[in-house]
Amino acid sequence: MQRYTTLILAGLVIVLAALLAGTLIFVNNQPVQQRAIQPLAEVAAMEPDSSKWGVNFPNQYASFLKTRDNNIATTYGGSSDFSHLEKDPRQKILFAGMPFSKDYNEDRGHEWALTDVNKTKRLNLDKENPKRTPGTCYSCKSANMPGLWAEMGLEGVGKTFFGDLTPRVDSSIGCANCHEPGTMRLIVTNPALEEALQAQGKDWKTFTRQEMRSLVCANCHVEYYFAGESKYLTFPWEKGTKVEEMWEYYTEIGFKDWEYPDTKTPMLKAQHPEYEMYTAGSTHYNAGVACADCHMPYVREGAAKYSSHNIHSPMLNPQRACGQCHTDTEAVVRRVNLIQEQTYKTKIAAEDAIVDAINAIKAAAANPNSDAALLEEARLLHRQAQFYWDYVSAENSMGFHNPEYALKILAEATNLARQAQMKAAQAANDPSLLQTGTYYQSGPSGQ
Amino acid sequence: MQRYTTLILAGLVIVLAALLAGTLIFVNNQPVQQRAIQPLAEVAAMEPDSSKWGVNFPNQYASFLKTRDNNIATTYGGSSDFSHLEKDPRQKILFAGMPFSKDYNEDRGHEWALTDVNKTKRLNLDKENPKRTPGTCYSCKSANMPGLWAEMGLEGVGKTFFGDLTPRVDSSIGCANCHEPGTMRLIVTNPALEEALQAQGKDWKTFTRQEMRSLVCANCHVEYYFAGESKYLTFPWEKGTKVEEMWEYYTEIGFKDWEYPDTKTPMLKAQHPEYEMYTAGSTHYNAGVACADCHMPYVREGAAKYSSHNIHSPMLNPQRACGQCHTDTEAVVRRVNLIQEQTYKTKIAAEDAIVDAINAIKAAAANPNSDAALLEEARLLHRQAQFYWDYVSAENSMGFHNPEYALKILAEATNLARQAQMKAAQAANDPSLLQTGTYYQSGPSGQ
Repeated sequence: MQRYTTLILAGLVIVLAALLAGTLIFVNNQPVQQRAIQPLAEVAAMEPDSSKWGVNFPNQYASFLKTRDNNIATTYGGSSDFSHLEKDPRQKILFAGMPFSKDYNEDRGHEWALTDVNKTKRLNLDKENPKRTPGTCYSCKSANMPGLWAEMGLEGVGKTFFGDLTPRVDSSIGCANCHEPGTMRLIVTNPALEEALQAQGKDWKTFTRQEMRSLVCANCHVEYYFAGESKYLTFPWEKGTKVEEMWEYYTEIGFKDWEYPDTKTPMLKAQHPEYEMYTAGSTHYNAGVACADCHMPYVREGAAKYSSHNIHSPMLNPQRACGQCHTDTEAVVRRVNLIQEQTYKTKIAAEDAIVDAINAIKAAAANPNSDAALLEEARLLHRQAQFYWDYVSAENSMGFHNPEYALKILAEATNLARQAQMKAAQAANDPSLLQTGTYYQSGPSGQ
Repeated sequence: MQRYTTLILAGLVIVLAALLAGTLIFVNNQPVQQRAIQPLAEVAAMEPDSSKWGVNFPNQYASFLKTRDNNIATTYGGSSDFSHLEKDPRQKILFAGMPFSKDYNEDRGHEWALTDVNKTKRLNLDKENPKRTPGTCYSCKSANMPGLWAEMGLEGVGKTFFGDLTPRVDSSIGCANCHEPGTMRLIVTNPALEEALQAQGKDWKTFTRQEMRSLVCANCHVEYYFAGESKYLTFPWEKGTKVEEMWEYYTEIGFKDWEYPDTKTPMLKAQHPEYEMYTAGSTHYNAGVACADCHMPYVREGAAKYSSHNIHSPMLNPQRACGQCHTDTEAVVRRVNLIQEQTYKTKIAAEDAIVDAINAIKAAAANPNSDAALLEEARLLHRQAQFYWDYVSAENSMGFHNPEYALKILAEATNLARQAQMKAAQAANDPSLLQTGTYYQSGPSGQ
């Protein structure tokens, strides 16, 4: 009897051992915090040379270097430097009179940032020109910037001519833009971000690690402008980070990036408000997902597990990026494609409406009998329509970061553009300015 | 030694027994198929009296009866019969000249469908009037309909005067609208749905049970129209179930629901295209979620587990409805609120644009010098703008069933409405027709 009991119990022990082994494998597969290790090399604060950090963190560094070779286009973006102006010539018209109409390429990976800023035709390197490019344009392009900001301040950088800063800027975006050496803690390195948060009564040092895994992206991936003569890098966040709140801010301070030729509209150029778009109540943000969760998914190589620093579109590796949470990644990709297609079509409709408005305002402005007050109303509607459109167009996700918000903004942009056109026709008392589809009538140049 | 082994093994057995118990509890908590049981009562095919079915399925029936008492409004809908015309007086203008401008209340629960159709002011019970209400209007209101369709056909029902059918219609929506007795299989009971599927080469009998848990809702919750003199109930699905495809269909057959007063626009009234909106690639549909998963979540009472037949908005019980998949239901409700608020604001902007268009077209139509061809273009733009707007407005989810699609459609509606207004001003050669915000200028009646 005792013998049978022993046999049965022994059998049960085997089952239990299997369960234990399974549990251990499961636990071992969970994300783990970076283990505290003795650094191999001491790295100075704000060290611009990422290869020095790479001695201590070879996996992260090796993956970061892959941003040099990830030049792959997705349907609407990715890391290939295709020309937006060639892909959608409406943008030549929309940005007429400012540098984006000359050269507007999709961004490549972080390792190319410095190369690409130095070769863009948007630069004005004529030192005597009052519109010469300021040093501020290096802000988001280099790991030298944290050190230069510490030394010169935002004002010093802004007052320095771009060309004069060039000898001191030799590293592309790197470790120093987001990390503190030693602890490798995620930190705010851009003083403009720190100041923008302070203006809202926020202190990034109280943010959780998961919040920082999005906030460090806001060191660069935000809406900003260059304030005043010193070209002081400023985020227009004083009233909040929604497009409506930034619009109100820009209206209040009367800022313009340029004046649109012939219409004389005081224009705003939206930058790349990924952080603001994503955090405006999007479904992924609401679910606690950080930028890094999708753009820097964990990878495993042998015994090591780390965040990929080969930052790029999740559409280039949906199984790794989306598959952490979504089991059916094929279905996810179908959804992303549909959302982006819907956003793209709505964006193009907004562009067509703005081109119509521009053509109408141009004609009304050229008419000496036009009502000046109505014409001014038309200009302000054009200004708002184009800023709202650009807020979605320049944002790097074709709506995916926050689909409903992006589409709501585009619906408003189109409505505003049509109202701008109507106001111009009223100003000139000329219904012939109400032509629609003028972009198509006049060929790809639209002129 | 043997004694210690036995003791250790006995301890392990206790652990294992606990694990087994836990597993059994877990398995028992999984959804189960309805167990095959011997029916207590025989129920005839298409039996309209749901209480007879209730003998065999007392839990489902008891929950169904609760649709009599679930008269609770959500932010934008729910099961309370509030007046849409009072809540948003723009709709009085938008539906001018047709019955929805007289009486347009939110739907109450399924148990009220028959009561409410009989008391709506939209009915025309004047038997001699050529616009008298046809029997077709009972289609989605009663469990008597499957039997009447079998007997009279869609054509017979359509040719019968509503009042003449009344004595034969005594049951509100019930079991017979979705189920086959005996097997309780989910079935298509509305011949118009069967025909619409056939026109697309589809046979519902090949659908999976999960697909049927959405398709039976399409017996009623769809876009439809009454075709020809016989008021033949028809779903405009021949080209597909997207709004663009239905618009093309209606354009091709030249159908109109009514003519808008003074503007003479041939109008379309959208019904309640919940099925089409939801299945047009929405995130939940893409994830395999059926209508019944959210609107009829499983409930447990004692040993019984069944689908709640107290069908209503998931916002009235988000923990039960959303909590099956989403752990943080508070976050889910915040997201739903934000999506609906964004859709609502975009919808109101579209309404304002359509009211402006209507006022402009009215004035142009009243001007004998207006260009007839341009005026006709304005009317067609108004027709499309309003159908697109109504497709979202009449759909019962304030965009939630498919937020991106709803917002894309509203963006198009607004753009079309502004173009209609511009075309009217061109027709009359009168820029004074380009006023915006005319709804606000003329008081709540808008006239």
